[in-house]
Amino acid sequence: MSTVLHVVEVIGVFVFASSGLVEARRKKMDLVGVFTVAFITAFGGGTVRDILLDRRPLFWIENYEYPTLVFIFCILVSPFFRQLRLVVTERVILYADALGLGLFSVGGASLAYGMKMPLFVCVMMGVITGIFGGVLRDIICNEIPMVFRRGQLYATCAFLGCWAYLGLTLLGTTELFAVISGIAVTLFLRLMAVRFDWKLPG
Amino acid sequence: MSTVLHVVEVIGVFVFASSGLVEARRKKMDLVGVFTVAFITAFGGGTVRDILLDRRPLFWIENYEYPTLVFIFCILVSPFFRQLRLVVTERVILYADALGLGLFSVGGASLAYGMKMPLFVCVMMGVITGIFGGVLRDIICNEIPMVFRRGQLYATCAFLGCWAYLGLTLLGTTELFAVISGIAVTLFLRLMAVRFDWKLPG
Amino acid sequence: MSTVLHVVEVIGVFVFASSGLVEARRKKMDLVGVFTVAFITAFGGGTVRDILLDRRPLFWIENYEYPTLVFIFCILVSPFFRQLRLVVTERVILYADALGLGLFSVGGASLAYGMKMPLFVCVMMGVITGIFGGVLRDIICNEIPMVFRRGQLYATCAFLGCWAYLGLTLLGTTELFAVISGIAVTLFLRLMAVRFDWKLPG
Repeated sequence: MSTVLHVVEVIGVFVFASSGLVEARRKKMDLVGVFTVAFITAFGGGTVRDILLDRRPLFWIENYEYPTLVFIFCILVSPFFRQLRLVVTERVILYADALGLGLFSVGGASLAYGMKMPLFVCVMMGVITGIFGGVLRDIICNEIPMVFRRGQLYATCAFLGCWAYLGLTLLGTTELFAVISGIAVTLFLRLMAVRFDWKLPG
Repeated sequence: MSTVLHVVEVIGVFVFASSGLVEARRKKMDLVGVFTVAFITAFGGGTVRDILLDRRPLFWIENYEYPTLVFIFCILVSPFFRQLRLVVTERVILYADALGLGLFSVGGASLAYGMKMPLFVCVMMGVITGIFGGVLRDIICNEIPMVFRRGQLYATCAFLGCWAYLGLTLLGTTELFAVISGIAVTLFLRLMAVRFDWKLPG
Repeated sequence: MSTVLHVVEVIGVFVFASSGLVEARRKKMDLVGVFTVAFITAFGGGTVRDILLDRRPLFWIENYEYPTLVFIFCILVSPFFRQLRLVVTERVILYADALGLGLFSVGGASLAYGMKMPLFVCVMMGVITGIFGGVLRDIICNEIPMVFRRGQLYATCAFLGCWAYLGLTLLGTTELFAVISGIAVTLFLRLMAVRFDWKLPG
């Protein structure tokens, strides 16, 4: 089961890195910009969480094969950027990104809970882990962060997914069950939000 | 007396949060954006200070009722946003913001002084605590930070207020007297700056 | 020899601070903005590195005469801004900035290597130390960071300079020789990149 989670984590890292890559290319950045923005999108949320909670070494220094892989990924993918966008459809990106959001958020909440943080802080750390990569990406690309603009629910799905995880944990279920349920709630809500165009009031 | 300071601190948090809320609404953000920007405006300065000085837990994790209150505040206030702006006049905002600036700045300087930082670093930490919430708010809202643009003195008031606090402390007055004097100097200078349109050279 | 490195470091701080000062003036900021942007440009890269590696006190708090000097520098230089730009030519700035880039980057890599970080992380820390001051400067000035836009090689020079330093260190040369070689490689590549208009693919 731990292997499954690990595979999902790697998928999450590459999905988030790809979204940074796409945005950096759209802004006509060169390879340095592409790698940096991809890196920050993939690892920014977890880094902000680790700094706020004072966890060291940072998770991408502990697993330094991740940034190395993202670096190689950017070099390999950049020349084939156009062809890639034909293969990887919007739908694939949507599913993968929703999965990444669920995994990063619930993972962050679980980690904060393990450090005995107050519940509301656990949820905040979860949401920060899930969305701050994208927030930093948009700040670097000189845009107002997408998740703060009025659009289909995104951070809210992570917020509710983290509460689902915490609720189940407090009810005494196993950690694994609570984590998977939290991820599933986030994923489900995000897909529903896109499907039925759910938005928050302005 | 400690109760008085605590009340003023809560006022400062809500004033700063409100200024984030106003800015987020102006940028047509949804509730997630409104809360995040309000949160970062209120707690961003102190968080940057705590990270630079390596203080943990962060003050808003230690007092986690603050972010919870700001969250509830955003949900309650958002629907009545227009009505609220009629009640809370510019003048009220100006006074409350100037008071918050004084409190956050002198509080930050006092905290750094307690950690035996060099004097110039104490003043920098004070000014950072006072202004960086607004700086981060403006960066997220994709604006050049207001405090850096040519306008009526703002950071400079905090700078001089922190020096006043440090000067009195070095002269051997009680901590309480030095803190209140520092806040008063900041508040007074800020109100004078607005009244007489004091500006720094470009 | 340590004195030489110290002098170069001070030069690096002032070159980077000046580039922040120029950018802040271009954006019509007042003295507070000028100092803050100059400060962040000079110390931002090292601060991000120290936070990521959890090193405290931060290097500019340990050497607090640096920010004090930058503060005095900004106050003294601001009124004579136009005259200064006539004396300090583009060529002088280019050389000094390339030297600063080399020194900051290789210094950062050396520091991370001393903390036994994995090699790829050492190089990343080096590049971050060298370029993140400018990245933060551009974010505050509401621009897409210059180093990420397509231009003559900049971060890439630091990247290769850091690998040169690490390669020599692993080969068993003295630290001093490796550091100077790394700086020389960065400086040389940067000057060649400007001279022959070397760019990365988009």
